[in-house]
Amino acid sequence: MSWQLGIEHLRDLARGAAILGTGGGGDPLIGRLLVEQAIREHGPVTVVDPDELADDAFVIPTAQMGAPTVIVEKIPRGSEPVGALRALEKHLGRHADATMPIECGGINSMIPLLVAARTGLPVVDADGMGRAFPELQMETFSVYGVPGSPMAIAGEHDETVVIDTGTDNKQMEWLARGITIRLGGVAHIAEYSMTGAEVKRTAVPRTLSLGLSIGRAVREARAVHADPVEAIRDALAPTLYSHLRVLFRGKVVDVERRTLEGFARGRARFTSYDGTSELELRFQNENLVAEVDGEVVCTVPDLICVLEGDTAEPITTEGLRYGQRVTVVGISTPALMRTPEALAVFGPSCFGLDVEFNPVEDRAETPAGVATSLAP
Amino acid sequence: MSWQLGIEHLRDLARGAAILGTGGGGDPLIGRLLVEQAIREHGPVTVVDPDELADDAFVIPTAQMGAPTVIVEKIPRGSEPVGALRALEKHLGRHADATMPIECGGINSMIPLLVAARTGLPVVDADGMGRAFPELQMETFSVYGVPGSPMAIAGEHDETVVIDTGTDNKQMEWLARGITIRLGGVAHIAEYSMTGAEVKRTAVPRTLSLGLSIGRAVREARAVHADPVEAIRDALAPTLYSHLRVLFRGKVVDVERRTLEGFARGRARFTSYDGTSELELRFQNENLVAEVDGEVVCTVPDLICVLEGDTAEPITTEGLRYGQRVTVVGISTPALMRTPEALAVFGPSCFGLDVEFNPVEDRAETPAGVATSLAP
Repeated sequence: MSWQLGIEHLRDLARGAAILGTGGGGDPLIGRLLVEQAIREHGPVTVVDPDELADDAFVIPTAQMGAPTVIVEKIPRGSEPVGALRALEKHLGRHADATMPIECGGINSMIPLLVAARTGLPVVDADGMGRAFPELQMETFSVYGVPGSPMAIAGEHDETVVIDTGTDNKQMEWLARGITIRLGGVAHIAEYSMTGAEVKRTAVPRTLSLGLSIGRAVREARAVHADPVEAIRDALAPTLYSHLRVLFRGKVVDVERRTLEGFARGRARFTSYDGTSELELRFQNENLVAEVDGEVVCTVPDLICVLEGDTAEPITTEGLRYGQRVTVVGISTPALMRTPEALAVFGPSCFGLDVEFNPVEDRAETPAGVATSLAP
Repeated sequence: MSWQLGIEHLRDLARGAAILGTGGGGDPLIGRLLVEQAIREHGPVTVVDPDELADDAFVIPTAQMGAPTVIVEKIPRGSEPVGALRALEKHLGRHADATMPIECGGINSMIPLLVAARTGLPVVDADGMGRAFPELQMETFSVYGVPGSPMAIAGEHDETVVIDTGTDNKQMEWLARGITIRLGGVAHIAEYSMTGAEVKRTAVPRTLSLGLSIGRAVREARAVHADPVEAIRDALAPTLYSHLRVLFRGKVVDVERRTLEGFARGRARFTSYDGTSELELRFQNENLVAEVDGEVVCTVPDLICVLEGDTAEPITTEGLRYGQRVTVVGISTPALMRTPEALAVFGPSCFGLDVEFNPVEDRAETPAGVATSLAP
C-alpha cells in the first residue's frame, strides 16, 4: 500500500536511519531540514511499496555522495539531487516514474524524499544497501546484476557529470569519487536506474518504513522511561534484521579520524565502565569491524551501531568524541546481504580487513556487552 | 584549399609540432605511429582550411589529455579519441562534420588525424592554442567565448565521462583533470564543439600546415648542412609567428621534474659552453618562463623551445637529460594570443608566475643567445 510521508514522520525516520547508517551515511539532520522545507512548499511525499511497482516502471535512485566529515560542513541548497536526476533522465532520454534510496542509512534516507517532494515523483520503500556503505559498487543492485552506469553527478554550481563504465561498478565508484573530491568532498548523484522488476529482484525491501519504525520505537521507549535498546530489538525482531546484540557498554577514550581520499577513515577506542575491557572500532565512513579485547565481535555487512548510553541516540563516526558514554550494538543484516556474491562485494575483505565474516548472532557474547547494568 | 595528408607528411609534422609544443603536448612519436597505422588501414586524411568551412558546419575538436611523463609510458590503443568524439556526438544528438586539434603542439597535432583517419571526417587546419598549453581553459576558443562544455572523456576500457560546467571552462578543466588522473594520468577528450563560423572567429588558423612546414624546413636544412635554427626562422617569418630569437646555447646541468596533480612540473638549468652564463627554465608540461642570469628573457604565451644543438630536434620537458647540448629559442606567439583577454587566460600570472608578459622580440638579447658559435 502506498502512503503519504509528511513532516510529522521525519524526526523518527532521521533517528532510525542514523541507526541503520552504522556510523555513516551522513548526519540526517541536514537532510531532514531540507525535506521539511520541501514538503512545506510542495506537500507530502508518496511512498510506494516495491511490490506495487509495475514491472516496467522506470526507477532512478538518488543520493548524496561524500565524506561525512565534509557533509556536516558543506550544506546543499537542495536542488542538486534533482539536478542529478534530470541530467540522467536527459542522458537516457527517458523520464523516471519514481525515485528510491540507494542507502537507507543517514542522510541518504532523506535525499530521495527531497527529490520526491520537489519533483512530485513517488519514492520506493526499498534501498540498495539495507544500511549505509561507503562505496557505490557496494549495493545489492550491483551484487545482483544491475549496472550502476550511466550515472549522473551534480555539483553546487549546476555542474553535471555523466559517467558510463559499462558493467564495471567499481570503476564507476573510482571515477565518481574523483569528481566528488574535486567538487569539494560532497556531491549528489543519480545511478542504478532500473525497472520495477529489477527493484523487486535486487533491492532490500521496506527499509524506509523500517527506519521510521525504529526511530518511533526509540522515541516511544524514552517517553515511558523504558530501555530504548530493547525497543530497537523489539522493532527489528519481526523484520529481515532479526537479531540485535549488545556488544559493549562503556566510554569513548580515543578517536583517530582523517578525511582521506574522499572518505572519513579512522578508529575509535572505548573502555568498559569498570575499566576491565576495551572495544576497538575501525571505520571508513561507516563502522566496519568491532573487536573486544582483541576478539572480533561484529563485522560488515552486519551493522555496528554506536548509541548514546542513556537515550540510544545514534552517534555517527564524525560525531564520536572523547568521554561519550555509549552502548555499541550489532544487528544482523538481511540474508540477501550475506550471500557469497554479496560478501564478495561488501564483506570484510572488500575493506582490506583480514577477518572472516561470521553472523553477529553466532559469535560469542562479550562480558561488557552481557553486563546488564547501565552506566553508573 | 583542402589537401590530402598521407604517411609521407607525418615525420615532418611530428617534428614541427614538437617544436610548437614548447616542451609539452606529449611526444608526437607515439601519435605518429598511431596515425601511420590508421592511414595505412583507412587511407589519407582530408585537411580543410578554416576559410573553407561552412558557417554552420559542426566541428568537434579531439585531443589527448594528461601528463607528458605518463603519455610516454601509457600507450593508447587508438580507439579512445574516437570514443570521446562518439560520446559527445551521442550526448549532443548531433554528428560532427569535421574534427580539429585543440593544440597543434606535440601529440595533439596527431590525435585529430587519428580520429579523422578512423572516422573519415576531415580535419580543420587550425587549433585553439597555436602551441601547447597544460590546461583546457587555456584555449583561444575559451578566450573568445566558446564554451568547452559539454565535453567527453574516454578511457582505455571504454569508460566515458561527459562533463558539463556551462560556461566555466576552468571548472571543466578541474573536473576533467580529476578524471584523467583516475584513468591513470592520460585520457582522450572531445570538447569545445562549435560551428564553422566560431572556428573562423576564434581558432589560430593553419597551424597543422605550419607544423608541417617547420618540420620540413628543419629536415631540408639538415640535408644540405645548413643551420636548422635559421631554417625555422625563415619558415616562421611569413606566418603569424614572425619572430624567432635564440635565447641561449649551452648544456643541461640540472633537471628537477615531478608528476604532480596530473601535470609534469619542474625546472631545468643550463650553462653556456663558456660557463659564464646560466639559463633557468620552469615548466608545467610546457615551458613557461626562461631566465638568463636572473633576467626573464621569454614567457608564456610566447613559445620557449629547447632544441638539440646540432640538429634542432625538439626536446620535450620529459626528455630533458643532464649533459644535453641545446639551443633554446623564443618564438613570438600570434597577436590573437597576446590580447589582454588572452593574457588573462594564459599569461604568466595564470601559471602563478610573478612576471609581466613582454613580447620576446622586445626583450634585450642575451650574450649566450647572441653568441653565433655553436658548441665547441
